[in-house]
Amino acid sequence: MTAVPTLDTLPDLLAVRSPDAALDGVLQHAIDSKTKPPGSLGALERVAAQIGRIQHTVTPTLSRPAMLVFAGDHGIVAAGVSPYPQAVTAQMVLNFLAGGAAINVFCRANAIALEVVNAGVASTFPSHPSLVDIPVAPGTRNFLTTPAMTRAQLETAMLAGAARVAAHAALGTRMIGFGEMGIGNTSAAACLMQRLTGLPLAACVGRGTGVDDAGLARKQAVLAQALAAHAPALDALDTLATFGGFEIAMMTGAYLAAARLGLVIVVDGFISTSALLVAHRLAPAVLEYCVFAHASDEAGHRAMLDALGAQPLLQLGLRLGEGTGAALAMPLVQAAAAFLCEMATFEGAGVSDRGEADAAAGPARH
Amino acid sequence: MTAVPTLDTLPDLLAVRSPDAALDGVLQHAIDSKTKPPGSLGALERVAAQIGRIQHTVTPTLSRPAMLVFAGDHGIVAAGVSPYPQAVTAQMVLNFLAGGAAINVFCRANAIALEVVNAGVASTFPSHPSLVDIPVAPGTRNFLTTPAMTRAQLETAMLAGAARVAAHAALGTRMIGFGEMGIGNTSAAACLMQRLTGLPLAACVGRGTGVDDAGLARKQAVLAQALAAHAPALDALDTLATFGGFEIAMMTGAYLAAARLGLVIVVDGFISTSALLVAHRLAPAVLEYCVFAHASDEAGHRAMLDALGAQPLLQLGLRLGEGTGAALAMPLVQAAAAFLCEMATFEGAGVSDRGEADAAAGPARH
Repeated sequence: MTAVPTLDTLPDLLAVRSPDAALDGVLQHAIDSKTKPPGSLGALERVAAQIGRIQHTVTPTLSRPAMLVFAGDHGIVAAGVSPYPQAVTAQMVLNFLAGGAAINVFCRANAIALEVVNAGVASTFPSHPSLVDIPVAPGTRNFLTTPAMTRAQLETAMLAGAARVAAHAALGTRMIGFGEMGIGNTSAAACLMQRLTGLPLAACVGRGTGVDDAGLARKQAVLAQALAAHAPALDALDTLATFGGFEIAMMTGAYLAAARLGLVIVVDGFISTSALLVAHRLAPAVLEYCVFAHASDEAGHRAMLDALGAQPLLQLGLRLGEGTGAALAMPLVQAAAAFLCEMATFEGAGVSDRGEADAAAGPARH
Repeated sequence: MTAVPTLDTLPDLLAVRSPDAALDGVLQHAIDSKTKPPGSLGALERVAAQIGRIQHTVTPTLSRPAMLVFAGDHGIVAAGVSPYPQAVTAQMVLNFLAGGAAINVFCRANAIALEVVNAGVASTFPSHPSLVDIPVAPGTRNFLTTPAMTRAQLETAMLAGAARVAAHAALGTRMIGFGEMGIGNTSAAACLMQRLTGLPLAACVGRGTGVDDAGLARKQAVLAQALAAHAPALDALDTLATFGGFEIAMMTGAYLAAARLGLVIVVDGFISTSALLVAHRLAPAVLEYCVFAHASDEAGHRAMLDALGAQPLLQLGLRLGEGTGAALAMPLVQAAAAFLCEMATFEGAGVSDRGEADAAAGPARH
């Protein structure tokens, strides 16, 4: 057992190291020895090799898969960027607690432990066994005029997200996903994306929960105004404090902590990936712990994935958030680990590899 | 309870009717009432509506998912179309029975009942509880010169495949997939595809288990010769008898039976889809019971899917067969049924639908 790293300060979170690649050759050999044509499991072979590298083993385990859904409200909603009222954030948190949202259904279907974190919703909640009620503040400020949060709030949020990941790791979680709920948070994510990728704003703004053409034009105009209001020469943390939500900030800390703890991270959609953009800027090696669940239908997500060099597993036209894409992809990630652990080898199963028909002619296999 | 249809003759199998669409409006309303932006579950919403239609209910169940893997040998292998020796078919059947193949791993991971059917392997097997040992013959004849099987063998195979599906339906299976094992069967499938779609042979022939460029050229030349040896004006059944394998023929009967029994069918890759091409020609409504699991990396599969108007769920670069793509997609199909059954509605959960913020201004919702 290696010592569990402490995650009490931002520098602790940022000390993400690449997984040791020493086993890569052994892993590839193990994958190629399985009773299947070489490469025939496609993307799952790539994922299996990655998981094996992260865990330093040819028999990886993805025990106690967990999904942490962070919820927060956004001051920018006052500028009219969403077709849904802000109250929906809190209503959906209650829906999560009652078990009726899509993420509940998919976590139940795939045996994923689900935790809901109030990162900063503009409402209060009754206590509930599935709710971790640690709001930084009752919603962010409106970043049309002022930074969404202070640096102190940002740090509080990041460390709180990290602590939630550490709590799950201590319970045995080896695979984790992060979801979110926050009316207005596609606006926050679009601004983060614009600042961190340098792409034109129009490439970063999508319809979110479903604004119409007029709503999309308004959202773009509001966000252009917001971006103009804040100096562009900020570092990644300041960028996150300026435009982020508390749920995005907690997720950013959660990514870093998960990488520090050697977990396999399954990355969800537009908002979740925006938090990863920040985490990646702070500690590039975090990417090596990430399996990308899906390319969502939210405009901009594909460009975000491209900016990270990510190859998503699913393209299902999802645009719901909550972590739903990650929850749907987890069985595929588990299947990748399972074939590496459980499949027989050509030799072990007594199956002829190709070329054995003419093996007398030479040693060529593959 | 409606009466279980008899499936004792070919005409019984061909009497596939479209599912009743009377509930379509109710299903769409149910899907749109769930606590999510309309359409935000993408392809899963389409699948949920299809499953609801097949089962005539807004609360569909996909109990006892099952995977039937049909194995058979192919006389065409004598012409040198595969880099693997024919003995691999039997060796892989034993691997299936020992639990070491990819399809075993994925069925275990996703709680899918797995049955292996010896449809016509050129070997004998010891009895085993997971093996249904009903070979039509010890491999097909070489279709380079003679039809692969007789019409009597074809009928025997199709009815046997149908009987296996009926046996699982009687055990409670509501979702089923079909896989295959047969060295040389991408050659059979390519010829079926060429005849049934009319596409050029080059568009139908791929690398199978992984022939190199020279092997691919040889495979194409052999199959061109085989196609030239058989008159093109055959009907779908004769086409299947001429080029098919016993595993493909059993699968064709299995598709028809599954549709007759109202099962949800999850369609795997190149070989499995070639059997569906035949079934579709015989009874077009079979398609309405099919969810397409994935687009495989075998050249030609995408064109096959296009010929059927199919929208596959996964694109993972798989090219293994055995039913692996279908087994990997089944959790997504179950997730689609689950959200329809289990998600709360906006009204039920007390979540504001969009537009409620300005509801006073008018009745517009959505």
